[in-house]
Amino acid sequence: MPAQPTAQDAAIKRITSPGNALVKAIRALHQKKYREAKGRFIAEGLRILAEAVDQGHAIETLVVLPEMRQHRVGARLVEHTLAHGGQVLEVSAPVLAKIARKDNPQGAVGVFPQRWERLADVDASGDLCWAVLEGIRDPGNLGTILRTLDAVGGSGAILLDQCCDPYSIEGVRASMGSLFCQRLVHTDFPTFQAWRASQGGLLVGTSLTASRDYQQISYPRPTFVFMGNEQSGLPADYEAGCDEVVLIPMRGRADSLNVSIAASVMLYELLNQDRRRTGGAR
Amino acid sequence: MPAQPTAQDAAIKRITSPGNALVKAIRALHQKKYREAKGRFIAEGLRILAEAVDQGHAIETLVVLPEMRQHRVGARLVEHTLAHGGQVLEVSAPVLAKIARKDNPQGAVGVFPQRWERLADVDASGDLCWAVLEGIRDPGNLGTILRTLDAVGGSGAILLDQCCDPYSIEGVRASMGSLFCQRLVHTDFPTFQAWRASQGGLLVGTSLTASRDYQQISYPRPTFVFMGNEQSGLPADYEAGCDEVVLIPMRGRADSLNVSIAASVMLYELLNQDRRRTGGAR
Repeated sequence: MPAQPTAQDAAIKRITSPGNALVKAIRALHQKKYREAKGRFIAEGLRILAEAVDQGHAIETLVVLPEMRQHRVGARLVEHTLAHGGQVLEVSAPVLAKIARKDNPQGAVGVFPQRWERLADVDASGDLCWAVLEGIRDPGNLGTILRTLDAVGGSGAILLDQCCDPYSIEGVRASMGSLFCQRLVHTDFPTFQAWRASQGGLLVGTSLTASRDYQQISYPRPTFVFMGNEQSGLPADYEAGCDEVVLIPMRGRADSLNVSIAASVMLYELLNQDRRRTGGAR
Repeated sequence: MPAQPTAQDAAIKRITSPGNALVKAIRALHQKKYREAKGRFIAEGLRILAEAVDQGHAIETLVVLPEMRQHRVGARLVEHTLAHGGQVLEVSAPVLAKIARKDNPQGAVGVFPQRWERLADVDASGDLCWAVLEGIRDPGNLGTILRTLDAVGGSGAILLDQCCDPYSIEGVRASMGSLFCQRLVHTDFPTFQAWRASQGGLLVGTSLTASRDYQQISYPRPTFVFMGNEQSGLPADYEAGCDEVVLIPMRGRADSLNVSIAASVMLYELLNQDRRRTGGAR
């Protein structure tokens, strides 16, 4: 005998048509202009969605395969979403593949409101570090930088000018959930510099032509690690606005590092110096 | 009055049809099975192709837009290719876009023979480091690791088991030319371990559950940095075969690093230790 339908069953919308208007509205979030217009974005996978919820991001629309409701984490996400006023859509695998735009999507997709902070509301004074990013073009690089920031105990990223969108699906995927615990600000360089005057700390850029080695600097709290565009690096006037410009040494034929690699070399130096200051504690 | 056709003009094949058999054969190299069957791969962009030539890789087939022949580097590549018995195809922009499989391709594509070395022919004894990679799935990560290896003065990558293909277009793009100066070997773990017995040095793996900090180890020449699959890391029996297994510390919510980031943290520690040993020389 089939189980009685529950109140939860009644609250869940079942969708089988890829042409459904709700499905189309979610799919549109793959495009930057719709993400911006709606102030929303999508993230995939039970683990990442659970991480989001744990970080205080309620899921506005949860899209799941039917079997996900039997999964411990899936059931928790359904319950959490409904309890926080969100909606749950139960869809077929082909519909989910349409939404995720990939052939073997993970079993769940969530829609979230974007969270941008105003720089004026940020107090960075006790923080280990922030990334300041200018003109990063590849969202995979941006997401990877957020993941590494998270790993070293950094606080967030301040995006200047025309950075790519951290809320694009590639950015969210590369961040592996770290997007949900790193703070995000979008501003311009003069506004950033005016704000920074109130924060103390150090703004350090990297350059292939710098003479000072990145390990010769003692990095205070907060250190702002300033990285530029993948091709062109930091613009000259931005570099001139740094407290320090350092060189990451290179020995081989390579004439530069991937920007997310260069950021990680800097961030791990900060973490390692901080570990030494605090007596080797992680 | 138009210039007289030169001997070089006569040697260059002009192709305007995307259906041309040569064009199709080059396009097929986007697929792994054709790359393997032909032992060939493609790389794009004047800068990378020039780097390849400088590293002693002759271009077997050079595909260029007509205007590239007026470009200093383009003209040099055309000359070099013909002088070394390769063929040069002059194609229209739409044909080049087909070959590169992207909308705004760079002005030149080259076809090269793959270069795999036999482990038995490798003497790593004086080298700073090699990467040993097991089950890496994303060619972007693999290419980025090659780029970082190059930057620290590493020698190459030893790929175990089912690693993705460094010669895929994504791998070549991410390596930014470093593929042409890093040595590549494909083997299995027992063969690698047998060979390593003759090389000395240290095999170091990373693990999220290791107790030893990665900065507590003194890394000798050669150090083999062993990285595993993006999701699952190193298999337990491979980890058991390491001389050391170390922890890269993490502080935030992130429970792991991107594999190319973890590799770079290790590789820069090796470089920094080597710089200290050699008195701060780069």
